[in-house]
Amino acid sequence: MALTGADVAKHSKADDCWVIVHGKAYDVTEFLPEHPGGSKIIVKYAGKDATEEFEPIHPPDTLDKYLPKSKHLGPVDMSTVAKEKTEESPDEIERQKRIQEMPLLEQCYNLLDFEAVARRVMKKTAWGYYSSAADDEITLRENRSAFQRMWFRPRILVNVEKVDFSTTMLGTPTSIPFYVTATALGKLGHPEGEVVLTRASQKHDVIQMIPTLASCSFDEIIDAAGPGQVQWLQLYVNKDRAITQRIVQHAERRGCRGLFITVDAPQLGRREKDMRTKFTEQGSNIQDGQVTDNSQGAARAISSFIDPALSWADIPWFQSITKMPIVLKGVQRVEDVLKAVEAGVQGVVLSNHGGRQLEFSRSAIEVLAETMPVLREQGLDGKIEVYVDGGVRRATDILKALCLGAKGVGIGRPFLYAMSAYGLDGVDRAMQLLKDEMEMGMRLIGATNIAELTPALVDSRGLFSHAAPPSDNLASAVYDPLVNPGQRVGVAQAKSRL
Amino acid sequence: MALTGADVAKHSKADDCWVIVHGKAYDVTEFLPEHPGGSKIIVKYAGKDATEEFEPIHPPDTLDKYLPKSKHLGPVDMSTVAKEKTEESPDEIERQKRIQEMPLLEQCYNLLDFEAVARRVMKKTAWGYYSSAADDEITLRENRSAFQRMWFRPRILVNVEKVDFSTTMLGTPTSIPFYVTATALGKLGHPEGEVVLTRASQKHDVIQMIPTLASCSFDEIIDAAGPGQVQWLQLYVNKDRAITQRIVQHAERRGCRGLFITVDAPQLGRREKDMRTKFTEQGSNIQDGQVTDNSQGAARAISSFIDPALSWADIPWFQSITKMPIVLKGVQRVEDVLKAVEAGVQGVVLSNHGGRQLEFSRSAIEVLAETMPVLREQGLDGKIEVYVDGGVRRATDILKALCLGAKGVGIGRPFLYAMSAYGLDGVDRAMQLLKDEMEMGMRLIGATNIAELTPALVDSRGLFSHAAPPSDNLASAVYDPLVNPGQRVGVAQAKSRL
Amino acid sequence: MALTGADVAKHSKADDCWVIVHGKAYDVTEFLPEHPGGSKIIVKYAGKDATEEFEPIHPPDTLDKYLPKSKHLGPVDMSTVAKEKTEESPDEIERQKRIQEMPLLEQCYNLLDFEAVARRVMKKTAWGYYSSAADDEITLRENRSAFQRMWFRPRILVNVEKVDFSTTMLGTPTSIPFYVTATALGKLGHPEGEVVLTRASQKHDVIQMIPTLASCSFDEIIDAAGPGQVQWLQLYVNKDRAITQRIVQHAERRGCRGLFITVDAPQLGRREKDMRTKFTEQGSNIQDGQVTDNSQGAARAISSFIDPALSWADIPWFQSITKMPIVLKGVQRVEDVLKAVEAGVQGVVLSNHGGRQLEFSRSAIEVLAETMPVLREQGLDGKIEVYVDGGVRRATDILKALCLGAKGVGIGRPFLYAMSAYGLDGVDRAMQLLKDEMEMGMRLIGATNIAELTPALVDSRGLFSHAAPPSDNLASAVYDPLVNPGQRVGVAQAKSRL
Amino acid sequence: MALTGADVAKHSKADDCWVIVHGKAYDVTEFLPEHPGGSKIIVKYAGKDATEEFEPIHPPDTLDKYLPKSKHLGPVDMSTVAKEKTEESPDEIERQKRIQEMPLLEQCYNLLDFEAVARRVMKKTAWGYYSSAADDEITLRENRSAFQRMWFRPRILVNVEKVDFSTTMLGTPTSIPFYVTATALGKLGHPEGEVVLTRASQKHDVIQMIPTLASCSFDEIIDAAGPGQVQWLQLYVNKDRAITQRIVQHAERRGCRGLFITVDAPQLGRREKDMRTKFTEQGSNIQDGQVTDNSQGAARAISSFIDPALSWADIPWFQSITKMPIVLKGVQRVEDVLKAVEAGVQGVVLSNHGGRQLEFSRSAIEVLAETMPVLREQGLDGKIEVYVDGGVRRATDILKALCLGAKGVGIGRPFLYAMSAYGLDGVDRAMQLLKDEMEMGMRLIGATNIAELTPALVDSRGLFSHAAPPSDNLASAVYDPLVNPGQRVGVAQAKSRL
Repeated sequence: MALTGADVAKHSKADDCWVIVHGKAYDVTEFLPEHPGGSKIIVKYAGKDATEEFEPIHPPDTLDKYLPKSKHLGPVDMSTVAKEKTEESPDEIERQKRIQEMPLLEQCYNLLDFEAVARRVMKKTAWGYYSSAADDEITLRENRSAFQRMWFRPRILVNVEKVDFSTTMLGTPTSIPFYVTATALGKLGHPEGEVVLTRASQKHDVIQMIPTLASCSFDEIIDAAGPGQVQWLQLYVNKDRAITQRIVQHAERRGCRGLFITVDAPQLGRREKDMRTKFTEQGSNIQDGQVTDNSQGAARAISSFIDPALSWADIPWFQSITKMPIVLKGVQRVEDVLKAVEAGVQGVVLSNHGGRQLEFSRSAIEVLAETMPVLREQGLDGKIEVYVDGGVRRATDILKALCLGAKGVGIGRPFLYAMSAYGLDGVDRAMQLLKDEMEMGMRLIGATNIAELTPALVDSRGLFSHAAPPSDNLASAVYDPLVNPGQRVGVAQAKSRL
Repeated sequence: MALTGADVAKHSKADDCWVIVHGKAYDVTEFLPEHPGGSKIIVKYAGKDATEEFEPIHPPDTLDKYLPKSKHLGPVDMSTVAKEKTEESPDEIERQKRIQEMPLLEQCYNLLDFEAVARRVMKKTAWGYYSSAADDEITLRENRSAFQRMWFRPRILVNVEKVDFSTTMLGTPTSIPFYVTATALGKLGHPEGEVVLTRASQKHDVIQMIPTLASCSFDEIIDAAGPGQVQWLQLYVNKDRAITQRIVQHAERRGCRGLFITVDAPQLGRREKDMRTKFTEQGSNIQDGQVTDNSQGAARAISSFIDPALSWADIPWFQSITKMPIVLKGVQRVEDVLKAVEAGVQGVVLSNHGGRQLEFSRSAIEVLAETMPVLREQGLDGKIEVYVDGGVRRATDILKALCLGAKGVGIGRPFLYAMSAYGLDGVDRAMQLLKDEMEMGMRLIGATNIAELTPALVDSRGLFSHAAPPSDNLASAVYDPLVNPGQRVGVAQAKSRL
Repeated sequence: MALTGADVAKHSKADDCWVIVHGKAYDVTEFLPEHPGGSKIIVKYAGKDATEEFEPIHPPDTLDKYLPKSKHLGPVDMSTVAKEKTEESPDEIERQKRIQEMPLLEQCYNLLDFEAVARRVMKKTAWGYYSSAADDEITLRENRSAFQRMWFRPRILVNVEKVDFSTTMLGTPTSIPFYVTATALGKLGHPEGEVVLTRASQKHDVIQMIPTLASCSFDEIIDAAGPGQVQWLQLYVNKDRAITQRIVQHAERRGCRGLFITVDAPQLGRREKDMRTKFTEQGSNIQDGQVTDNSQGAARAISSFIDPALSWADIPWFQSITKMPIVLKGVQRVEDVLKAVEAGVQGVVLSNHGGRQLEFSRSAIEVLAETMPVLREQGLDGKIEVYVDGGVRRATDILKALCLGAKGVGIGRPFLYAMSAYGLDGVDRAMQLLKDEMEMGMRLIGATNIAELTPALVDSRGLFSHAAPPSDNLASAVYDPLVNPGQRVGVAQAKSRL
Repeated sequence: MALTGADVAKHSKADDCWVIVHGKAYDVTEFLPEHPGGSKIIVKYAGKDATEEFEPIHPPDTLDKYLPKSKHLGPVDMSTVAKEKTEESPDEIERQKRIQEMPLLEQCYNLLDFEAVARRVMKKTAWGYYSSAADDEITLRENRSAFQRMWFRPRILVNVEKVDFSTTMLGTPTSIPFYVTATALGKLGHPEGEVVLTRASQKHDVIQMIPTLASCSFDEIIDAAGPGQVQWLQLYVNKDRAITQRIVQHAERRGCRGLFITVDAPQLGRREKDMRTKFTEQGSNIQDGQVTDNSQGAARAISSFIDPALSWADIPWFQSITKMPIVLKGVQRVEDVLKAVEAGVQGVVLSNHGGRQLEFSRSAIEVLAETMPVLREQGLDGKIEVYVDGGVRRATDILKALCLGAKGVGIGRPFLYAMSAYGLDGVDRAMQLLKDEMEMGMRLIGATNIAELTPALVDSRGLFSHAAPPSDNLASAVYDPLVNPGQRVGVAQAKSRL
């Protein structure tokens, strides 16, 4: 017989804590101290239904994986559970109005338009998680700016009636040289999560990289794929290598065609916008001002398992457990690309993790411009595939990367924003816009296929200039500018009274 | 006997569609699918008078050329045609007020002033078409910025009592080294269209380039010219070369003195400002949100005939069908200038099509600075005339181009704006202002004639710097800047109540 | 017997035109077509008292010099002249209020503060004349910006208890290495005009350059000087060399110690801010829109006598008519400095005329950095004194120029602003502030006297960068930035009604 | 028997002036002319209690040191002293409200956040003193900007499970390579002054440099330290070397471990923001406009004893009077670092005094990048420790400096702001934030200890670019930008009446 709401409600304290998730009750009392996101967030729901909070942050198989069966207390008769009367906040009412009045999908003409709409219609915390980056977010913006310091040297009078921008990545053909890169917590943006991206990728014959930190489970994302659809696995390496081995080999069995090991995140970044969004003032602080322990945002909560000891010495082990091509994701200097060649991996992704990890990492496109001439000089450019991600918003960005020598580019946030604003239709349109731009761009640059995209088509001399970095908004906001001497207001009246 | 409005009104559907243009009825039912601008825009006027919509986009000989005589249904008694009661929108009423209060012509002191006035008084769609450019319009603004990275090294103590800035272009003398370059759809800005530019050009002894996509017919523009007035033909090459041959040879017969083949537009650019201006929300979308097929702006509609297969291999054919000097318009790298010399054409226009085609094409003035030293080094600078266009607003811009080695510069939008705001008087004054600035500029730079304008008079080292590109307004608008911690508003009151 | 107002008032037409100036009547009918500022401005005062308009633009000896004695009609009984009831405009009332509430003099801590105050309290036309510059005023601002691309490399642990920044210029000692450079129309800013600058210069042992286009007469300015006070003459060369000779030799006789021949102004610049300020809309234009002849601002009116034929060939003649040291003012490239050495003149002023002549002339400080190494390399740095002007606002600017090798710097507008805002006290304080800054600057840079200011104390590598020129305000104002798709306002309500 | 308020109040004039400080009366009549801050500020309190004004500017032992015992008049019965009814100004009421509503400490996520809060809650004069800098404060902001022109080249796949950023400075171990640098007048920000910094430094095992111009006395600061806590002495050298010797030897006796001689301040800088803050308009000026003698801000008042004659020749003397390591603070060019090596001192601090002394001094980080390659080339990098300060706000800044070769970095204002806003807790949190950032930064850059921070980890090519210096706010504010021709407002109505 099912438990009732009243049964669960009795266990509403930290030392006796039951919660309901998806209609089932769980005893999490002993689990509390182990929860990567801290115990406090769970205790808040002690004795209550935690589904809404739980959902976007945890893949559905989480409880099965991490909570012993003995703590699974079985189904709850949800009709007996008191509905939280979440009186809608003024913010939420405003947001609902913005959703109703959001622009039509066909008014979005480029990837940035989706971001504009998403910013208006997403929940503030979700927007905070997706859009935030490290420290002063200068790297985040540099990723975009760097592309704008590169210019084209297009060829004219080339017969461009037919242009073909299909290519291969890690040996598999694909319709266009971008892939959907791994991004965490898809359900923050859309209730169905990452499978939305899977479906759009299938439609457009685009490769999807499956994130370790997805809201959907790995198998859900694989299952959502169509026949022959290419997917890769992004991997945060667990301190427990047995878990990592299980994940990798499972992915290979399920048909993944590439293993992308994240190497730029031995510790996940502090993202202050995310932290500030999360911050909710406790009543008690108002009166006593005492310091409380606040969440450091979603990123830290979900990443405590990542192994900061991962090193070059681990690569042979990966090569021993899988036949998938291995790609190092997050390489940031030419020296490490050369090491990667030596280590015998199949590729690297030049990336600074979308500006979310080390502030003042250079943009991938700049590192690419540093890397390719060295690879060519040493005759190594055929030995390894070089990918870039970060800041890609236009087909011209893709073209620039390919002219310099990239095999493909990863695009992450823009598809999250398109999904958050318009669901599958949004991602579909975003991909179509990129394809339209790509066709136009190929024609106007005078290239009929990917092989014709060469360094001679770009002027990248400006790329290395850091004379005018993105503005430091926090510092600007605190600077108190000099002013000229003010008028002595009121003096005129005073005089006139004399 | 003339048709009546009622006769026409019976044919008001897509599968039976008559329209009235300039007092005559036409059966366009069969033509609908072939209309380059799509069928929808015509069906909107099925059974009605379409003249106002038709006028600026189509030269007057369009219907004769493209619609079989059998579909010409003859005159309509216009007194029987119901007048559309176009209730004036609030926007239009505001615009009419702005027109009444627009500044006097003599308050315009430079070419940018005309643009400021035009922006206020033009219809939003017309302004959108003229002012828009590719993608993020960074190239559009770079065209202007690039000139500002070049500085003068003027000579002093030169006798400049008399300065003479007359020159020759393609062998014909002209009063000043700029020409009116080809721009489409003149009637969007002024009811008389391109002939206004013709008349002003005549008055000032300035060369006019006649656009393929004019609102006036080619012959109207030729007929508007005075005796001895020099005109050139700008050519979009048609997939059907017979049509192209007819156009070229007709132009030569009518006295055109130069053939400018556009080579930077195998496909016309997407211009998002134009598209956004055009977008008009259909009622149905409000409720069901379904995607509708929207116009991609005027540019796409009028350009579907252009041949993307045009290539260097076609040049000999052009040389075989005309004796006019041939100039390639839209060259963007020194390598292609060298190819043009080899191909035996008489000139090139370094141009990125006013920033309307490939975003991140470099400015013409930068390409010029790349090109001329190579030509001089190879002894080819006498073999070909090099022109530039894009971003020219001041005589100092003209002087900079000529110092670097350009034979002349093209100016487009500024004359459209002057015409749109003040008609012929506006264009007249715009040209006079340039001449006044030119006289002053020659004097102050210490040059008495065009031959004295040499590279030693400029410092163009900054030209190649792309350290601080024009701002990316869309990206800036979506970026959510970091903020300092906010005040805890209301706490003071709460405390005071304790 | 004196004339009456009524007598004069009878001659109030263009073909019979008397005017009153300083209580005397003049018949200017025949002079009208010769008036350099155009006849219209005089006819406006036909039959009336023109003193207020006449005063700031004309030195007091103007009428004696240019109008035949026969046209001097003698004194007018001013009590019979109708007072113009100039009802105060709202603008003027506001300005008077601003004057009453202006900051105390001691609230001005630097030269820019005076400019801020002057901008508030000056008449708009006067401010327009002083502050305006050529074209888009980019050069004006570059003059200031250029200094900010130069940085110091100060020496430490130098005994700077005593610092001495006195120096010599053209052989005469002076207390500090700046001089008051020539600026026109001092009475626009202060009723006493240039003599105010003379008095402040005397107090501070600073050299003053007397302008050709002063509001005061040359002799008034000379007479205002104290014993031993050093003054120079700035010369616009007249087409009539006899006049020039008279001026030069008179100046030498009166004790001038240097002749500064302006070489950057064969034609005076168009200054659009000045022109726009001057523009006053005629009623008639409102209805018929016809073009009227408008003033081109004060600059053009007063400069028509300047000889655009002046050339290097004239230099020997100047050397033959005077023993004063000759300095060429307005040199803008190293080649012309070398020519000046060859011509045997004693000095050059590197200057772009405060940005008022050729737009995109480089800053003097940049030309200095180009010039001095060449002079040193050729062993010519002892042969000629090199001065700079333009943009100097701080002692650090003076120090930078001297470190690069300048003998002194000219300062113009800042003293005009100080004078316009606070009269003699203002100029006095401005000079004192510069001296205070200079003492501090010498100490902090580690130099005890002028000779110790060497190139090793500055890092001027950034000076030649033109990557980020001053903003083009007109172009920015007309650019219509891209926007994200807007909300569909009102849809929410519409939906809620369904 | 104690004096009464009435007794003191009788001596309320400049020529008979008693004041009360901390409950005791003093006769300062004879001292008035010697007061470094001018007599006026004292006379304002003649006959009254001056404690509040006296407190933050003077260490508690000031009166004992500088006023003869005979002038110490003994205790005052404070109950008899009339309380100044300082009616709270509207500004102060606003500030008190801001204090009540200030953010919780844990909402501060970085050092800039403390500055934001401090700006809101500090007294305007205190904020003015702490935040102001020389001239146009361009150097102040360049110090920050320079760091942003340096980017990282992080290493990946380094085992960073354990990172250790402890180091040594001048031979003593410390937990992290920053120290609290000397800043003046701590009581302006917090009633307890510099000892707050001492306590936080102890908690975090951070070295503190004790300022000559502290609000607390030297001994108070020493006494506040815990056992083994490392402190250094910052020294302004007195004209009277006996005083200096006493200070130095006393510091050594009390356990100071380093002597930092300030060499960039032979005269303390003019700081206009500070001066403007201080300015209080005297009633009399309103009517007669006469110039009054105003304070030049706190800096000048407290620094008149500093010896501008200090030179390299003095160094051996310092070496003779102390065994503490000697460090020159304020070195600004590589040549002087070489001289310092030659002079045998133990270290240099590359610094421009937080932008408060010579405007346009280069940033310390730029000078570091100039210095270290020369030291390495000459084999001198082991001979001297090189420190930097100025603009450090993030651990990434510290990492950049250390990668270039700095031994440590000084941080000043941020701790003052943290202290001013939140007291000891604020400084504690600020230091903890830096440690958290440092740990993350080490991991993400791929370094496990300080020795691994090398030049190969940074790209500092942009550091020397001065193409886009910080904005010149005063000059921008006074510039009057060009505008397009305005509408002729009202014409429409006028026409409609016709």
